[in-house]
Amino acid sequence: MAGIIQPKVLKGFRDFLPQMEIPRRKLIRALEDHFTSYGYVPIDTPVLEYAEVLLSKGGGETDKQTYRFNDHGGRDVALRFDLTVPFARYVAAHRNELSIPFKRYHIGKVWRGENTQRGRYREFMQCDFDVIGTDSAAADLEIMLMMAAGLRAIGAGETRIRFSHRGLFNQLLEKLGLEGKTAEVLRIVDKIGKIGAGEVRILLGELVGKEETETLLDFITPAEDNRETLKKMAALAWSEEKDGSAEVRIKTILDAVEKMQLHHNLVLDPSITRGLDYYTGIVFETFLDDMPSLGSVCSGGRYGNLTGLFMKEPVSGVGASIGLDRLMAGLEELGRIDNAASGTDILILMLDEALLARYQILAHGLRQDGLAAEVYPENRKLGAQFKYAEAKGIPLALIVGSEENEAGTVNLKDLGSRESFNGLSFEDARGKALEILGK
Amino acid sequence: MAGIIQPKVLKGFRDFLPQMEIPRRKLIRALEDHFTSYGYVPIDTPVLEYAEVLLSKGGGETDKQTYRFNDHGGRDVALRFDLTVPFARYVAAHRNELSIPFKRYHIGKVWRGENTQRGRYREFMQCDFDVIGTDSAAADLEIMLMMAAGLRAIGAGETRIRFSHRGLFNQLLEKLGLEGKTAEVLRIVDKIGKIGAGEVRILLGELVGKEETETLLDFITPAEDNRETLKKMAALAWSEEKDGSAEVRIKTILDAVEKMQLHHNLVLDPSITRGLDYYTGIVFETFLDDMPSLGSVCSGGRYGNLTGLFMKEPVSGVGASIGLDRLMAGLEELGRIDNAASGTDILILMLDEALLARYQILAHGLRQDGLAAEVYPENRKLGAQFKYAEAKGIPLALIVGSEENEAGTVNLKDLGSRESFNGLSFEDARGKALEILGK
Repeated sequence: MAGIIQPKVLKGFRDFLPQMEIPRRKLIRALEDHFTSYGYVPIDTPVLEYAEVLLSKGGGETDKQTYRFNDHGGRDVALRFDLTVPFARYVAAHRNELSIPFKRYHIGKVWRGENTQRGRYREFMQCDFDVIGTDSAAADLEIMLMMAAGLRAIGAGETRIRFSHRGLFNQLLEKLGLEGKTAEVLRIVDKIGKIGAGEVRILLGELVGKEETETLLDFITPAEDNRETLKKMAALAWSEEKDGSAEVRIKTILDAVEKMQLHHNLVLDPSITRGLDYYTGIVFETFLDDMPSLGSVCSGGRYGNLTGLFMKEPVSGVGASIGLDRLMAGLEELGRIDNAASGTDILILMLDEALLARYQILAHGLRQDGLAAEVYPENRKLGAQFKYAEAKGIPLALIVGSEENEAGTVNLKDLGSRESFNGLSFEDARGKALEILGK
Repeated sequence: MAGIIQPKVLKGFRDFLPQMEIPRRKLIRALEDHFTSYGYVPIDTPVLEYAEVLLSKGGGETDKQTYRFNDHGGRDVALRFDLTVPFARYVAAHRNELSIPFKRYHIGKVWRGENTQRGRYREFMQCDFDVIGTDSAAADLEIMLMMAAGLRAIGAGETRIRFSHRGLFNQLLEKLGLEGKTAEVLRIVDKIGKIGAGEVRILLGELVGKEETETLLDFITPAEDNRETLKKMAALAWSEEKDGSAEVRIKTILDAVEKMQLHHNLVLDPSITRGLDYYTGIVFETFLDDMPSLGSVCSGGRYGNLTGLFMKEPVSGVGASIGLDRLMAGLEELGRIDNAASGTDILILMLDEALLARYQILAHGLRQDGLAAEVYPENRKLGAQFKYAEAKGIPLALIVGSEENEAGTVNLKDLGSRESFNGLSFEDARGKALEILGK
């Protein structure tokens, strides 16, 4: 006989107990319903892919964190570390099978061998949604509106979307002759929320001249309202050769949200850059009004070429990604997660094993009226059965012993108020149950 | 500039296009709702675990097929190949946090590096459900009833559950002095559905004596009805030292299903053994009445010790596993899968970019009445927009140009009948849409 193996999970990985998995599944289903109501369709891709496909961008940090190995056939494979690269590969592979413009969502786990000391998980859930095959302002607007409405739908309350446009930022860098330092400047500016303007001034000063530093700082500082901010951004980035399309795009979005009276949800914030070179148009981050300290729970932007690694014709689009684990943690802290231990409405107690069929028939009848009903599986003491109901948060019990069975009646007990309703017909008990549960 | 990378997936792995992912998600959600209505709760476990945990049973075939590698920290890890071993580990790890008896379900992907030539996938979806912490007949019965009702709920129609009891089979083997050859006998008998009784006779004849072969064949051949089958099984396996509990268990189940008038769903078939040593009580396989050739879509049984590898106290239970991919394939062949390309009810055409906000407000209004509404994201030719609606299977279009906008009216078009309803108020259009869709 072999020894006992420790039932432990890997660092950074988690088991989900029912009281966490139930709200997680609810959240995912609410998001699925939300995306469907906007015409977005679900896709799925393999968890495991050729390493060449996933790592072709060669991002240093990502490469190091990716779970990569050789499979039985000696293939160099890896676990996906995000849902963006698989989506690019998917679009390239199926471009003739998709309706373009293509609106999709994808909810799934991804894996990164990150340092768990920073409270990060190595297995976590992402939720991505994109519209590809169009460069329109309508798509930009829709992604941001859908995001805000989605967060509202799952109980996260009101949100503030901070957005900007990479086109204007790049225009400014060009004007300042800094286009060769784009990546570094972006990286520094992207940190402003964490390190503050003072620190950003110091870091920029080490990279570019004093005057350029001040111009950059001026540019990334919002004015008193969106219109003023846009005016300042446009003026600083202005140059004769440019067509002003970025300015027009921002204006179109501001016009629309004002008409929809949603302008309080959208803040033009030129310090938002989203680091990555990948983005070419609008970029945004989303903060919960009730918990801005949580950081951005949903970020994204417009890209000019999603599929560059896999096909010649560029495919542009706009999309965003929700970090579901961070969002869940935030909702839990805000007390917005209902940690139900089960979805059961009514427990049918087992008083007599000979009544097995009767209990199952009763349960079946209750389910037909939309009540979640379960039969306690053993003839144990009533105390144990009530304790089970309490642990699972079950509000009602149906009690039928041999006496009630012969009389053709049932007893219903409200486990919250401890009130009993005895000698009822099944129909009356079912009606009473629906009434107590407010169904 | 690097060359173009082939956007290919690994052999045995699949992308899911929306028209397959939409019904797959529907199927999963219907199963989730079904399990919830029986009081079963969801759990989740990591995809990646210590190899020692997953492979501790040391099943030869499984070991060879498992994706196993060393992670960044040099840990020996593996992708789960089923949901049973992770469940055993989970129960051992959280035994003090679970309400016992514990009824859970788990739907998730598993990975096996199988030979893909047999039409098998290397990444596939399993759906497991179990009741643990009780040895009762009530739990045995419930698992089988829930399974049959679940298959009905997802449109698979009526099912035939073929079940037997490993206790009686083991008793017979003991009586025949064959307990040392249990595993081999089980493996041969398990093949009867595929190779037939003649071939089984030959294989058994090579393993045991002629008389034992005939007794075994007699035992595994069902009689004309469940009661007769039980009588024959009990007589052949009878011995003085045995307590008859297996016979009583089968009888209890037969009594209950007769009272529930579900006996046509349940067939006592002593040739069902489920191969594995793991099972100790009832065992069963499930076949669709409309497509028995698909093979068993849901199989399981009772086990005496789920957690033996991870803790000292044994935990018994009963459970089953649905092969969702095989089931999906069967439902598709039966024409029971609705390959909808989207869930969108109504497409709002874009005739004028200046009306962006208006289109979004209209969409919002429709969604509030439970209609899935999407705005076409570009001001393209109407032909292109209608073609998009057709490709996505969208039944209705809402058409608002600058003229309608000024008049405060909208035009609704039924894309199936090609009927148009022009000059409606928004409320009337919404009412008409609900009427056409029968909502």
